[in-house]
Amino acid sequence: MVITANNPDRKTWLNIPKNTDFPIQNIPFGVFLTRDDIITIGTRIGDYAIDLGALHQLGYFEGIALTDDIFLQDSLNDFIADGRKTWRAVRNRIAEIFDEKNKSLQENKEHQKVILFTLDEIEMQLPVQVGDYTDFYSSKEHAQNVGEMFRGKDNALLPNWLHIPVAYHGRSSSIIPSGIPIRRPLGQKMPNGAETPVLGPSRALDFELEMAFITTDANHIGEPIPVAEAEEHIFGLVLFNDWSARDIQRWEYVPLGPFLGKNFASSISPWIVTLDALEPYRTTSPKPVKEPLSYLKSEGKKTFDINLEVAIQPDGKKETIVCKSNFKYLYWNMSQQLAHHTINGCPVKSGDMMGSGTISGKEKDSYGSLLELSWNGKKPLKLKEGGDRKFVHDKDTVILRGYCENKKVRIGFGECSTKVLPAIKPK
Amino acid sequence: MVITANNPDRKTWLNIPKNTDFPIQNIPFGVFLTRDDIITIGTRIGDYAIDLGALHQLGYFEGIALTDDIFLQDSLNDFIADGRKTWRAVRNRIAEIFDEKNKSLQENKEHQKVILFTLDEIEMQLPVQVGDYTDFYSSKEHAQNVGEMFRGKDNALLPNWLHIPVAYHGRSSSIIPSGIPIRRPLGQKMPNGAETPVLGPSRALDFELEMAFITTDANHIGEPIPVAEAEEHIFGLVLFNDWSARDIQRWEYVPLGPFLGKNFASSISPWIVTLDALEPYRTTSPKPVKEPLSYLKSEGKKTFDINLEVAIQPDGKKETIVCKSNFKYLYWNMSQQLAHHTINGCPVKSGDMMGSGTISGKEKDSYGSLLELSWNGKKPLKLKEGGDRKFVHDKDTVILRGYCENKKVRIGFGECSTKVLPAIKPK
Repeated sequence: MVITANNPDRKTWLNIPKNTDFPIQNIPFGVFLTRDDIITIGTRIGDYAIDLGALHQLGYFEGIALTDDIFLQDSLNDFIADGRKTWRAVRNRIAEIFDEKNKSLQENKEHQKVILFTLDEIEMQLPVQVGDYTDFYSSKEHAQNVGEMFRGKDNALLPNWLHIPVAYHGRSSSIIPSGIPIRRPLGQKMPNGAETPVLGPSRALDFELEMAFITTDANHIGEPIPVAEAEEHIFGLVLFNDWSARDIQRWEYVPLGPFLGKNFASSISPWIVTLDALEPYRTTSPKPVKEPLSYLKSEGKKTFDINLEVAIQPDGKKETIVCKSNFKYLYWNMSQQLAHHTINGCPVKSGDMMGSGTISGKEKDSYGSLLELSWNGKKPLKLKEGGDRKFVHDKDTVILRGYCENKKVRIGFGECSTKVLPAIKPK
Repeated sequence: MVITANNPDRKTWLNIPKNTDFPIQNIPFGVFLTRDDIITIGTRIGDYAIDLGALHQLGYFEGIALTDDIFLQDSLNDFIADGRKTWRAVRNRIAEIFDEKNKSLQENKEHQKVILFTLDEIEMQLPVQVGDYTDFYSSKEHAQNVGEMFRGKDNALLPNWLHIPVAYHGRSSSIIPSGIPIRRPLGQKMPNGAETPVLGPSRALDFELEMAFITTDANHIGEPIPVAEAEEHIFGLVLFNDWSARDIQRWEYVPLGPFLGKNFASSISPWIVTLDALEPYRTTSPKPVKEPLSYLKSEGKKTFDINLEVAIQPDGKKETIVCKSNFKYLYWNMSQQLAHHTINGCPVKSGDMMGSGTISGKEKDSYGSLLELSWNGKKPLKLKEGGDRKFVHDKDTVILRGYCENKKVRIGFGECSTKVLPAIKPK
């Protein structure tokens, strides 16, 4: 099926801002609470949120095989499980409905009243119920930087890194949508030079600039997914801030990996931009330093040119952009990640989330965490307003943004924005 | 509310085997498929599976606040979310219904026909939909043994171990019930002395003798659970085999912990034995070597005396019991684990699962994994029938069992039994 929704020349009859992240070529999917406190699945064009449940009830998806309640749900899991053919048909249809040449909904004000919402009338929710969340570690620059800080330049990359898209399991229950504030976590830490650990608020709270992909029901237990088929099982991408408490993490992480240093909160942007929408922005990954084993060999353009940035906004002050990076810098692509994840038969399901790992580039202003940007606090980062930062302060808001662009169309992810509240007092 | 279900003198009118794991004092909870292919929540007394959905529809739970469909579900998550008061009331009522003095169901053959099933008429399912699964590492003997093998005796326990109930996140999607066979996993391994890794079936497939506890909705994001309140949020326990591929794990696990070496399968026993049922078997944990921080200080009898064993049964041969251990050997108890898990505000939900980590004792025959029993393959274990074992062979069945016992009553967990099938061929 041709992705007619991607037609770069299409215009919509909706009045939308120039340079929006959400032109009619984007058509992402999300879940929101409406002004009537009803939860529904929707899409977004410009600054309009569109209720897909209402569109469906009014017959606008006629001819596409969809169950009656597919959009009247509190997560996209069932819709995603319907598979790529369905996602594509629905996106194509939405593009037609809002095409300036289509008068059907355009001239039906009654229908518009129940279908269209302004952004201040809705509240975005998590788009999926995440069954399992895995976080990769696929930026060579990030792994190199962190390794260099803790083990020195010569031993920075561990021996397995160039052979394996290294990953670990994260916690699903603490994934939250953009806009929900987090509390600075309490935790056990071992102060430098001390002999016994202490309990207290993290003093090294950090963001990690990541993206995450959302999967469909991909395989049965015991069945690997071949690398060449992996993209068939990927629904789309979101911005992902993998909050990290470096001091808690440092003390706890041997030998079983990060745990409480990560699982207090992870923030995502609420609109899932489909892989279909990103199609025009395909590009190649960095050339492998070592040849991967055959199950990880990936041909062609299997990554995407997505510009990324991070801003820190101190309370009541102007923001400073502290990092500019790109999704295409990642050494391991999503196909390799999914092939590796399932080579042992591990089952991947609809709504599962896979984080990329911190996306750092080669340049110093492209590092995707304060740990790297301030070189573990040794070189505090100067903000335009609000002082300097070794790590994130209370009441700071950290904002991730991302977009693709070519001569004709810009497709964006909106924001993943999270404010940090002070820690609670330990009991 | 008194736990009248635990009355040790109560007898049932059902005809049940002597020394069953499931006397009328147990009353565990599980989910099964009936002869009519209907999924329901049930309990077990002796060798009878009891359909709680049918009991409820026929009015046997009158007076207890339960929604109509609470037992007509494919998981216990909603029932568990109802909280301890409800679990206790339901268990007490079931004990009354099957008490030999109660003639109501005893004399109603029509009702019995839809309520009672023999074990060969049903198929056990996973009892909960596991949202998040965490695996602890709470046996000092196990951590010591593994540390000694890989880092030598003097550096066996890492510096954080005596201060933190170390844990990592596991994969929920590959948790399976007893009886489902697993495939030997494929994976990337670095052979000893080699310079490049290879892909192939694990040659070091291992079991890990663990137990796991199932939680209810315990806290909101940002709210720690005090150690003294932790047990209020624990529904019950199952046997847990945390399958491990040591060769895959060894190559992949630095620096972010175990991943594909673990997430191909984890097996659990299908009946959740409630903390209420285990009440008579409370005991104390080992004396702490170092005083824990105040948020981890746990007073009184906060663990349980549960005898555990592991048997290996080669294909068509008699089994050999290879390990006898006890849940009470664990250094960190469940209350400490849950307090630690939430000290940073990590939310814990109904149906989440927390593995204990491999439960090893001091004696050599109490080690809870083949890695320890065969000392990393150096001392192969001799079976009564079927040769010896460094690690698990194809077509071996590994069986975990567990029970509590006092003078009057024995409460057991049944079995967690899993057969290993050969690896598939890599594509």
